[in-house]
Amino acid sequence: MNEKTTQPISPDSLIRKSILASRAYSIDHTPSPVILDANEAPFTPPRKLLERMLVVMAGTPMNRYPDMTAAALRSAIAQKDGAAMEEVLLGNGSDELIFYLIMAMMEPGDRILVPTPTFVMYEVIARHMNMIPVTAPLREDWSLDMELLMKLIRENAPKIIFLATPNNPTGHKYSLADIEMIADATPGAVVVDEAYIDFSEKGSYGLLYKRRPNVIIMRTLSKMGLAALRLGYILADRAIVENVDKVRLPYNINSMTQAAAGEALLHWSEFVPLFAAVRQEREKLYSALQQTPGVKAWPSEANFILMRVENNRAEPLFQSLLEHGVRVRWFKGHPRAGDCFRVTVGDPRENTLFLAALREAL
Amino acid sequence: MNEKTTQPISPDSLIRKSILASRAYSIDHTPSPVILDANEAPFTPPRKLLERMLVVMAGTPMNRYPDMTAAALRSAIAQKDGAAMEEVLLGNGSDELIFYLIMAMMEPGDRILVPTPTFVMYEVIARHMNMIPVTAPLREDWSLDMELLMKLIRENAPKIIFLATPNNPTGHKYSLADIEMIADATPGAVVVDEAYIDFSEKGSYGLLYKRRPNVIIMRTLSKMGLAALRLGYILADRAIVENVDKVRLPYNINSMTQAAAGEALLHWSEFVPLFAAVRQEREKLYSALQQTPGVKAWPSEANFILMRVENNRAEPLFQSLLEHGVRVRWFKGHPRAGDCFRVTVGDPRENTLFLAALREAL
Repeated sequence: MNEKTTQPISPDSLIRKSILASRAYSIDHTPSPVILDANEAPFTPPRKLLERMLVVMAGTPMNRYPDMTAAALRSAIAQKDGAAMEEVLLGNGSDELIFYLIMAMMEPGDRILVPTPTFVMYEVIARHMNMIPVTAPLREDWSLDMELLMKLIRENAPKIIFLATPNNPTGHKYSLADIEMIADATPGAVVVDEAYIDFSEKGSYGLLYKRRPNVIIMRTLSKMGLAALRLGYILADRAIVENVDKVRLPYNINSMTQAAAGEALLHWSEFVPLFAAVRQEREKLYSALQQTPGVKAWPSEANFILMRVENNRAEPLFQSLLEHGVRVRWFKGHPRAGDCFRVTVGDPRENTLFLAALREAL
Repeated sequence: MNEKTTQPISPDSLIRKSILASRAYSIDHTPSPVILDANEAPFTPPRKLLERMLVVMAGTPMNRYPDMTAAALRSAIAQKDGAAMEEVLLGNGSDELIFYLIMAMMEPGDRILVPTPTFVMYEVIARHMNMIPVTAPLREDWSLDMELLMKLIRENAPKIIFLATPNNPTGHKYSLADIEMIADATPGAVVVDEAYIDFSEKGSYGLLYKRRPNVIIMRTLSKMGLAALRLGYILADRAIVENVDKVRLPYNINSMTQAAAGEALLHWSEFVPLFAAVRQEREKLYSALQQTPGVKAWPSEANFILMRVENNRAEPLFQSLLEHGVRVRWFKGHPRAGDCFRVTVGDPRENTLFLAALREAL
């Protein structure tokens, strides 16, 4: 026995200081009958389709590794979106793709630029990978501050700009002209995160990378009733896909997801009326919130609504909603949204329960 | 239209030079009736268990995100391995865990140390993350060169040493005494990758981190007939798990994998005889190879056998095997294993077909 064993290594000494000092990403998941805090769809795939998905999963050999190239699934995505299969790259949710994009495009110390508030994982992942996030606060009405963005692009030469649009948690959708102007001004890539695009009246920005090769479109199946499968994807110029693919973990998408998601996407048309129903419910919910004294709601093109509650009442209101069996997302402690809730549009029953609980709580 | 749009950005300019210059990880997947190149199990879970796994998958709500903490699955793993749930961290295969360990423990430019040849992803992922791999060639008989390792530890102060044992592709298992000596000598972590441990007569190293807190045990479900699910995990001191968990993508393990793997692990005892059958087949295959002129096979404690073919005949032999419908792994171009095949132990029929094809080819 040598000296080392008498003084065993402290586990903490093995961890990077920045990670030791950081806190884990966590969300309060108090169980609740009505769950409106995660922007999940209030629908699952239609029953017959769900059965077909289970049948293809059952037919997948458990002892074999997944198809490394996920050819069938990428082909189904390409067909749905009018892209080429070589323009499609898959991830376990958008999270993993943010990871890969940073790994393929950025050297330690490089910068990302994000309008804020927005989806937090851009900043979280960038920090974990030794990158520096630069933030461009949105205006009071949650629109892009284009002047500020242009200035920050010039000053920071960001390697990646992440634009969630419709934006989470604001529900605001950015104009195509603004996105094109940003793409033209930056020396780096612009990731247009269309996670919520199916709930926007005006629809997708399309295959914008055909005209602006530094634009990368990012989408997910999580909001179309398939959050359980964890599938995100990017559409981009094939030279970008080919290179980002080099850092992808070879078997990142498991066989069950490849099978189930592939089957679901072949039946995309069955989801379209479900999106329309959510949009309709969203407008009803928005009208109701506008008529509710003590809250300000913003119009949304996503499957959620951001609302502000007056008079520092966020905490008691949040608790009261929970007591009434409704869980919404509260941005506790957020510098600009600390008195805001993000409410997912649920099914008619859930939305009614939420409105009743809110009115009682107020 | 400004000047930028007339000179669109070249997609290649957005990619890191080191990634542009690198080649994608790829494996020749020529279709073949007998697949013995990926160390997959020749068995799936027993039919009744497979049915139960499908039932729990079918009962999982498609529209909800997975449990962020994967509590039920981690608890099933903890129970099987005699660990605490707080000592378990999950990844999409071991690949994702290698990623997380490097991200949580290493600063850009830090070093990993690996005895080679070994599983290639340690080096591949380390490079992508701006780390420097240091290699310690194994001896001629594939045993650890302890003297060299001690020297390289002193010179490089590696943040992580990756020890696959039984090692892939050599099948050699390292002694507990050697592993403890390495753990005591290094200032960093030692990842003991037990991917193939279920095929070793002498069994696991156990919860070695209880005595050596800088040891991290890594395991996978891929070799127990569940490669389709992509589940790997580490067992480690809870302070390490708690900190590595901070860099984990929150919903990394999808609901189908959580459901199916959890159910399978509750029935672990049903897999044990399947491992024994593979060990038995391996010994038969090894004897047969020993009696085959023109090849040298090494003893193995894994579910594969490494063999060397004489007289520069690897290429024609590999092609001939393919023509006979058998795909094995050939380490084409590898400096030390370029004339070696790694042959997965299949079921009795597959092994017989392989031996017949090999003899005919020779």
